[in-house]
Amino acid sequence: MYETVKSCIKKIRETNPLIHNITNYVVMNSTANILLAIGASPVMAHSIDEVEEIASASSSVILNIGTIQHSWLESMILAGKTANKNSIPVVLDPVGSGATRLRTEAVKRIFDEVKIDVFRGNTSEIMSVVSQKIRTKGVDSTLSLNKELQESIKNLAKEKKCIVVASGENDFITNGSESWLTKNGHPVMTKVTGTGCGLSAVTGAFCSVLNENKLKAAVAASAIFSACGEKASKISEKPGSFMTAFLDTLYTCDDEDILESMNIEKRDTV
Amino acid sequence: MYETVKSCIKKIRETNPLIHNITNYVVMNSTANILLAIGASPVMAHSIDEVEEIASASSSVILNIGTIQHSWLESMILAGKTANKNSIPVVLDPVGSGATRLRTEAVKRIFDEVKIDVFRGNTSEIMSVVSQKIRTKGVDSTLSLNKELQESIKNLAKEKKCIVVASGENDFITNGSESWLTKNGHPVMTKVTGTGCGLSAVTGAFCSVLNENKLKAAVAASAIFSACGEKASKISEKPGSFMTAFLDTLYTCDDEDILESMNIEKRDTV
Amino acid sequence: MYETVKSCIKKIRETNPLIHNITNYVVMNSTANILLAIGASPVMAHSIDEVEEIASASSSVILNIGTIQHSWLESMILAGKTANKNSIPVVLDPVGSGATRLRTEAVKRIFDEVKIDVFRGNTSEIMSVVSQKIRTKGVDSTLSLNKELQESIKNLAKEKKCIVVASGENDFITNGSESWLTKNGHPVMTKVTGTGCGLSAVTGAFCSVLNENKLKAAVAASAIFSACGEKASKISEKPGSFMTAFLDTLYTCDDEDILESMNIEKRDTV
Repeated sequence: MYETVKSCIKKIRETNPLIHNITNYVVMNSTANILLAIGASPVMAHSIDEVEEIASASSSVILNIGTIQHSWLESMILAGKTANKNSIPVVLDPVGSGATRLRTEAVKRIFDEVKIDVFRGNTSEIMSVVSQKIRTKGVDSTLSLNKELQESIKNLAKEKKCIVVASGENDFITNGSESWLTKNGHPVMTKVTGTGCGLSAVTGAFCSVLNENKLKAAVAASAIFSACGEKASKISEKPGSFMTAFLDTLYTCDDEDILESMNIEKRDTV
Repeated sequence: MYETVKSCIKKIRETNPLIHNITNYVVMNSTANILLAIGASPVMAHSIDEVEEIASASSSVILNIGTIQHSWLESMILAGKTANKNSIPVVLDPVGSGATRLRTEAVKRIFDEVKIDVFRGNTSEIMSVVSQKIRTKGVDSTLSLNKELQESIKNLAKEKKCIVVASGENDFITNGSESWLTKNGHPVMTKVTGTGCGLSAVTGAFCSVLNENKLKAAVAASAIFSACGEKASKISEKPGSFMTAFLDTLYTCDDEDILESMNIEKRDTV
Repeated sequence: MYETVKSCIKKIRETNPLIHNITNYVVMNSTANILLAIGASPVMAHSIDEVEEIASASSSVILNIGTIQHSWLESMILAGKTANKNSIPVVLDPVGSGATRLRTEAVKRIFDEVKIDVFRGNTSEIMSVVSQKIRTKGVDSTLSLNKELQESIKNLAKEKKCIVVASGENDFITNGSESWLTKNGHPVMTKVTGTGCGLSAVTGAFCSVLNENKLKAAVAASAIFSACGEKASKISEKPGSFMTAFLDTLYTCDDEDILESMNIEKRDTV
């Protein structure tokens, strides 16, 4: 996986892939900065009058439902369909799914109309697609990632024919038959807004340069993102200076010591 | 007040209260980070289709009219009414009231339809509710907090049956009969956007854990927020590094030296 | 030019001009912080119900089409017309023009209905107004600023009777007959989002205190902004800590060593 990560970063820096984000107001700025730091070229565009053009010129499309309203959902679906037509990878981040009907149903409708390549969220957001009993607390997970949950997530990945990235203390990444854990990171990452949304966008960037193996791309993205978080937490464990250090670290994410610190575990191939 | 502040922070950190923000685009990111830093759990949601669910699951609702448009006003009123029904504290931040009819009337309409618990703004924003002659310059105050103004603010608090927090060099906090001044802070706090909006959100978080005495909660919030600002200004008086230091300081706001630096004055009990 | 810059900064700090921004979601926070750092007073307001009042009370109006949607375009035109009526300088930032029809046509329509004083963007955004063959990659330029392009930009400035600021490695500033290059800056400025948008806003602030010579104001803004970027890059060349240092440096932009580092070249007077 070391070589995969290294080669993805190299390609991202050489080609500056355009990453189209339809994302929430809270994280637009931080997501743009995270994508710039790794070498990608972010564009934020949500108007129904331009998402087709932007999506079709992009190397990846990120749909993020935080702060969603109905008109944005239509744009997300159009952007997603456009990406599908052009074999452009689509990442869906179900921010707050399980907290409100609007968000839970937005995720359902996007899955009905768009082929999602990577579905990345926290555990209760992910599981809200499986069971209406799962309740998300605002945008915070209410579930921890035990063995049973991992099985449910694998089943979801099979059913939806997509890769699922369930973020938590560790990230669990699966396509239903092959699963991985990335085990870096630090609790301070949950004390700044937008780290999860940032990973979704970075996953899109990695998929754009490894479109032929999006499972590997998602594992690579998760591994380096959390390794950078862990590295940055050694500079500061306080949220303000951590966020600054995190952007700085992402900018140098091909440093040998960061690449070597990645803690990745292959779980199973069924 | 020292013990009140300490106990509020402890409760916020133990329970991570969900704080529902309908707020302006400029500060969504910084408000989320400020709330995370003190230990609360922010959620931003404005769609009329989900604010009832979010508000009723929250421990506090913050209505902030910066960058308002009509559709958001309806959502604010619905969220506020939902909070009222469930005895959830509501904070109103009248950003730019007195600068435009839209904003002045938005505040008026919210007061007409929602029971506001805490009304926090700068002095001219606050006073724009009292007199149409008061003009706010964009989002900046045009008034300073003299004795006469303090009396007007006390009358407003009585009339609206709410707590008023009028921010300036010092913060004046009153329910009309009991008044306090918090006297920490530093001018650099006015050189980064979103500190006032951040205090409104933090006040909501404090009210959520001290719902039975929201005046004390508002004083406590204002005292610790400005003490953290003052502490951070000792790390840097320049706005970029100040903002970083401010988030870091809020994250450690239960440090004895910050708690002990709080400068609070009880003004009167009429 | 040294004296011009110094005197503009002094006036901005003495009068705190109100700068009305109708800008994109990504940079609202950073633009507000950049304007505060130089001493101006930012206000963000986009509702059609208040832009007339805000614009007419402002010292400069900034129209920025990133993340645009149709309803915002109407507000931009109304704000721009209001500014025109009151001789308030108007800056147009064509973010992403040339990437989508929506954005290219928004720029065209704004030019049709509003007298633009300064048109600031990257080279391909600027040139998209001249030729439909110019394609912008998301929000990134696809052109570099050679001699031929400079001639085209001068012709555009003449045709539109406005000042054009074409940003790139150097900034080219022209009214068609008199042209300047500002040559400070550092590549890391392209690795954080919102530096270009920030320059547009700062240009508006400079025009507000030098309304009688907006070409000089635009050159001054560009010169000090890029000199501050270059200075900040000496503190850090990594994007997170660079952005912090950049805000800090803008806050001290009247320091002699920054003023003296400005690298400005007069190109021609035709």
